[in-house]
Amino acid sequence: MIANRQVLLKARPVGEPTTDNFEIVEKELSAPADGEVLVRTLFLSLDPYMRGRMNEGRSYAASVIVGAVMVGGTVGEVVESNAPGFAKGDFVSGFAGWQEYANLPGKTLWKLDAKAAPLSYALGVLGMPGLTAYVGLLDIAQAKAGETVVVSAASGAVGSVVGQIAKIKGCHTVGIAGGKMKCEHLVNDLGFDAWVDHRDPELFKSLKAACPKGIEVDFENVGGAVLQAIWPLMNDFGRVALCGLIAHYNDTSLSAGPSWLYMLARRLTVRGFIVSDHMDRMKDFQRDMGGWLREGKIKYREDIVDGLENAPTAFLGMLKGKNFGKLIVRVAQ
Amino acid sequence: MIANRQVLLKARPVGEPTTDNFEIVEKELSAPADGEVLVRTLFLSLDPYMRGRMNEGRSYAASVIVGAVMVGGTVGEVVESNAPGFAKGDFVSGFAGWQEYANLPGKTLWKLDAKAAPLSYALGVLGMPGLTAYVGLLDIAQAKAGETVVVSAASGAVGSVVGQIAKIKGCHTVGIAGGKMKCEHLVNDLGFDAWVDHRDPELFKSLKAACPKGIEVDFENVGGAVLQAIWPLMNDFGRVALCGLIAHYNDTSLSAGPSWLYMLARRLTVRGFIVSDHMDRMKDFQRDMGGWLREGKIKYREDIVDGLENAPTAFLGMLKGKNFGKLIVRVAQ
Repeated sequence: MIANRQVLLKARPVGEPTTDNFEIVEKELSAPADGEVLVRTLFLSLDPYMRGRMNEGRSYAASVIVGAVMVGGTVGEVVESNAPGFAKGDFVSGFAGWQEYANLPGKTLWKLDAKAAPLSYALGVLGMPGLTAYVGLLDIAQAKAGETVVVSAASGAVGSVVGQIAKIKGCHTVGIAGGKMKCEHLVNDLGFDAWVDHRDPELFKSLKAACPKGIEVDFENVGGAVLQAIWPLMNDFGRVALCGLIAHYNDTSLSAGPSWLYMLARRLTVRGFIVSDHMDRMKDFQRDMGGWLREGKIKYREDIVDGLENAPTAFLGMLKGKNFGKLIVRVAQ
Repeated sequence: MIANRQVLLKARPVGEPTTDNFEIVEKELSAPADGEVLVRTLFLSLDPYMRGRMNEGRSYAASVIVGAVMVGGTVGEVVESNAPGFAKGDFVSGFAGWQEYANLPGKTLWKLDAKAAPLSYALGVLGMPGLTAYVGLLDIAQAKAGETVVVSAASGAVGSVVGQIAKIKGCHTVGIAGGKMKCEHLVNDLGFDAWVDHRDPELFKSLKAACPKGIEVDFENVGGAVLQAIWPLMNDFGRVALCGLIAHYNDTSLSAGPSWLYMLARRLTVRGFIVSDHMDRMKDFQRDMGGWLREGKIKYREDIVDGLENAPTAFLGMLKGKNFGKLIVRVAQ
């Protein structure tokens, strides 16, 4: 038996969540069943989609049940294996959730090569957020060389990769982020062509100046006022890859989107997508991204918080844009 | 010189247009220039898109200039030809607009075979409205056998064809129209599986009952309350072919569309389209539609109004749903 600290969903939030929605408990964990692997969590990924799982009702994935462990992608080390193909000491990626240990079916894990890249990259640039950027930009929005690509939440785990892939593909890239530090990071470190601060009182005017030829592709992570500014700048046959709506996750009623008259007049395509529907692209993605990382074409920033007990506060901060780079909790060394 | 009656845009409407926005005048028309054909209008097509052309500003096509002839598709007879390939007595389709005669470049006309189908069909089921239905359903929305297809303005020129092609392709077809007569026509004459009256105070409930498995494809002609009822019934990976928004054409400010949170959760694709971008499909369309008409698989209803002077009133009535079938003005016998 192992003592296992867990973060549970204690109560569903109404509007903005607080630390009261979470509870930290300690439970005993038995040995892995047949086909299972006991994994000790090293890193936990914190991502905006988790806010949706805290709600009840019809979403794209099942809600977390009240009293259950919060869901989440993790990187861990095999402590004991009862599944073929895994041995003690292997590093694996999977979905253990917000806890120190988990017995996970071997089928749901994939092995990591600790020499190829830092292990935590499997939760970011080489994992689901990276794949989200890749699929959204190339498959959903079909960005082409010479087009203007706007990405909101551009310094985040997904947005920062979107901008850099778009640049590799020869696009004019405009990043929207909050605050001078993040905005300058976009241009100075990540190679974006221009930035716009979403707190700018003249948001539309600034965005227009950054997109002198209009916008062909919007990689949308935010919604709200940011989307309203982007919308009238979309060019004919523009595409919106709808990846996230972090401005709306705390809404207590469904808020309206921008006018459809524009969508008709400009022949826009808006397509909602979720990365888990596109796992068939993982192999292509890892091949391309691995190459770009080795060639130094992709820069990647992590924001690492120590200790599982700090996950709720870090998560709440992320919903307000307080993280700077991919938010990761180091659960164990 | 020929005396030519014309309907001009007299003034731009603010909100709902009235007959005061139009003016009927008579002007003299000279002989056709080199490369032109003098055509006598037989039939004028009246279509919802014309409402957009009455407005100023950025739309998908140029506005009609105040004082100019209203635009429109027409079928006519060649009176005098100064262009190769056309001779007196030929029947042609083109864009003469709301007038009795026009000198049109030969390049903008296509000849019609009066024996193959009634001439006016070139303005409807065999022309742009038919092509709109074909492209929107098959290319934009990619409707497949077994899927549920909902079409608004279902008894209109486009909607009636959408429903029938969807049925040919093996879809479950649900038409939305206004009033019992039009609704029963959908099921009794056009072969729709179910109808819903958009005036139904329990619109959502009735639509839900008509779509027991939810909706994969919405062929959207209307917007407003109809779209709001359709939206929450859309299934995962559903597609909206956004063809028209007749509920909004008189809006004096941009009205908001439905919530994007649904679009994300359900991974919907919404795509605005305009038939003139898809003329490359005309040949395929005419081959398929010609076959379906000969086989009796497509029924088609026209609402024919006599006299160019009645075009404004007929057009205003159409915007309120008063026509029953494709609205055509018989300008001359």
